[in-house]
Amino acid sequence: MSFRRVAIIGLGLIGGSIGLALRDDGLGTTTTGYDADPAVRTRARARGLADTICDDPGDAVRGADLVILCVPVGAMREAAAAIAPDLSPDCVVSDVGSSKRTITDALTDALPGFEIIPAHPVAGTEHSGPDAGFSTLFNQRWCIITPPPGANPAKVAALVDFWESLGAMVETMDADHHDRVLAVTSHIPHLIAYTIVGTASDMETVTRSEVIKYSAGGFRDFTRIAASDPTMWRDVFLHNKDAVLEMLDTFLTDLALMREAIRAGDGQMMYDTFSRTRAIRRSIVALGQDDPRPDFGRSDHK
Amino acid sequence: MSFRRVAIIGLGLIGGSIGLALRDDGLGTTTTGYDADPAVRTRARARGLADTICDDPGDAVRGADLVILCVPVGAMREAAAAIAPDLSPDCVVSDVGSSKRTITDALTDALPGFEIIPAHPVAGTEHSGPDAGFSTLFNQRWCIITPPPGANPAKVAALVDFWESLGAMVETMDADHHDRVLAVTSHIPHLIAYTIVGTASDMETVTRSEVIKYSAGGFRDFTRIAASDPTMWRDVFLHNKDAVLEMLDTFLTDLALMREAIRAGDGQMMYDTFSRTRAIRRSIVALGQDDPRPDFGRSDHK
Ligand SMILES: NC(=O)c1ccc[n+]([C@@H]2O[C@H](COP(=O)([O-])OP(=O)(O)OC[C@H]3O[C@@H](n4cnc5c(N)ncnc54)[C@H](OP(=O)(O)O)[C@@H]3O)[C@@H](O)[C@H]2O)c1
Ligand SMILES: NC(=O)c1ccc[n+]([C@@H]2O[C@H](COP(=O)([O-])OP(=O)(O)OC[C@H]3O[C@@H](n4cnc5c(N)ncnc54)[C@H](OP(=O)(O)O)[C@@H]3O)[C@@H](O)[C@H]2O)c1
Repeated sequence: MSFRRVAIIGLGLIGGSIGLALRDDGLGTTTTGYDADPAVRTRARARGLADTICDDPGDAVRGADLVILCVPVGAMREAAAAIAPDLSPDCVVSDVGSSKRTITDALTDALPGFEIIPAHPVAGTEHSGPDAGFSTLFNQRWCIITPPPGANPAKVAALVDFWESLGAMVETMDADHHDRVLAVTSHIPHLIAYTIVGTASDMETVTRSEVIKYSAGGFRDFTRIAASDPTMWRDVFLHNKDAVLEMLDTFLTDLALMREAIRAGDGQMMYDTFSRTRAIRRSIVALGQDDPRPDFGRSDHK
Repeated sequence: MSFRRVAIIGLGLIGGSIGLALRDDGLGTTTTGYDADPAVRTRARARGLADTICDDPGDAVRGADLVILCVPVGAMREAAAAIAPDLSPDCVVSDVGSSKRTITDALTDALPGFEIIPAHPVAGTEHSGPDAGFSTLFNQRWCIITPPPGANPAKVAALVDFWESLGAMVETMDADHHDRVLAVTSHIPHLIAYTIVGTASDMETVTRSEVIKYSAGGFRDFTRIAASDPTMWRDVFLHNKDAVLEMLDTFLTDLALMREAIRAGDGQMMYDTFSRTRAIRRSIVALGQDDPRPDFGRSDHK
């Protein structure tokens, strides 16, 4: 089976990119879109983010065989409740939220009896809103699908095909494991970047204008991810609390060891740590998840 | 006054970039170069990093009116001692080291009676060695000059002109203040990046291959600076210990507050912090120290 009518709820960076990618895929999929914000719907119409942009969530999902919720993590339950009365009984409901356990529970709760197969495309930029999306966002990026126990295998397979048709590589895993993996690879890096940018702007002995001026020494790379959407990230930390705290504490232990090495002048310990980390970078580049070029190959994507 | 003969000691990323920039500046400056490593000298000759590459440090500095030490921070004293017997009495000795207090002390000690005017171009990449340099590295980047009390004003002015002729914008400040500013804008970001990449590679519940696969969620941006040269960074942390520990402790206090906000589910505190940090990014972009394009404008530089 494959999905013929796809409804996208939430037309920001991710929802808009899905719509644009479907328009370009040549498979003739029909798309409808809805966003709670009338100004977003206006922009979505202008950019053609879906074939039809509806002013009512029910109109968007009626007749759809795949509904994808692309709203902030904290708005998933409300968005699901709003479409519940109009969903086709055998449609698949999926989402793109950055954490999976609490969303799975919220959707199961709000949509009893429906086939819920959560997903998370590991692709994004620091921009959000209806003007941020682009059709190649998912190219060569992973999408993690977290089918609950008992999910219909044919429908899971259809969702895998769907993401592959958008250019993504797909992996399936359990929701709890997803939340741990993403805590390490995404949530902790964002938390640290937000914190250090905050620390640097409040220093007593170093002015904010000095921080800005000399940011090319490393700091500026943190400011990019610390410019990500505050609503999205607040929701991620509210919803993936346990895994984030677990990973944060491991990081804090390692940072205390580094602090002690600096205090004690232990050059060997530092040298060893700093040498090991280069290998990871090489593997990431080799796997096509980053690029050795100075622009990380980002110019290919936008 | 301006410098007619410039000797570059250490022909890696920074020394090589200085040599290439001088070749292109059209001012007719003569350059000599020396590196302790014969293999580096061979590559330096092949790339033309200086007009003459010498096999002996004394030959390189004899007759030079500006000598720039471009070796790792921990090798500055030894490199200075090796050239001491052959320096012209009225030459200026400068350097490019990433920390300034301990280097100033080491150079003053090794070269009594010479005019020592330390400097630090805040520009770099994660690559090192004689093949890493390029002539536009310092374009639109800041160079901080830290003249000791009693430095000859005409010679300080000549060093300012020198860096401006390489494309840099110049600021002067006290060595101790430099070390605090760079601790915030460069040393702590590198320390954190090295630590988080280390933490992520040693997780028990998440495999290394998962970390690599899903790195596009934020982690990969840390791996680039954590791939920087281990020798250089060991030396930075050995030599800028006090300022790094001071700034690290401020960061740790802020991170503990964020941890508590996550634990308590304090969404408002997170939202406020995450919103404030966007303004800093905008200022950095507005000041030309980063670029809103997906490649940060790096393609302009290399
Ligand atoms: N950005 C990334 O890098 C990234 C990557 C992977 C996954 N994700 C996940 O993707 C989801 C969307 O993120 P995004 O970056 O696309 O955010 P975005 O650009 O802000 O788009 C979200 C859109 O949903 C709208 N919305 C909010 N509540 C709604 C509701 N109840 N019904 C319908 N529309 C609603 C928002 O309108 P208002 O703005 O007016 O509230 C906004 O237009 C999030 O769950 C996020 O965790 C993000
Ligand atoms: N990389 C950056 O981003 C950056 C930015 C601003 C400032 N800096 C500072 O610039 C300096 C050089 O850094 P870099 O990145 O250019 O390093 P690099 O590429 O490793 O170059 C340093 C060169 O100096 C040689 N060397 C070591 N000891 C020497 C000695 N006693 N006499 C002569 N040559 C010697 C090294 O040879 P071996 O490799 O064989 O030891 C190497 O070829 C450091 O002080 C660093 O703190 C770096």
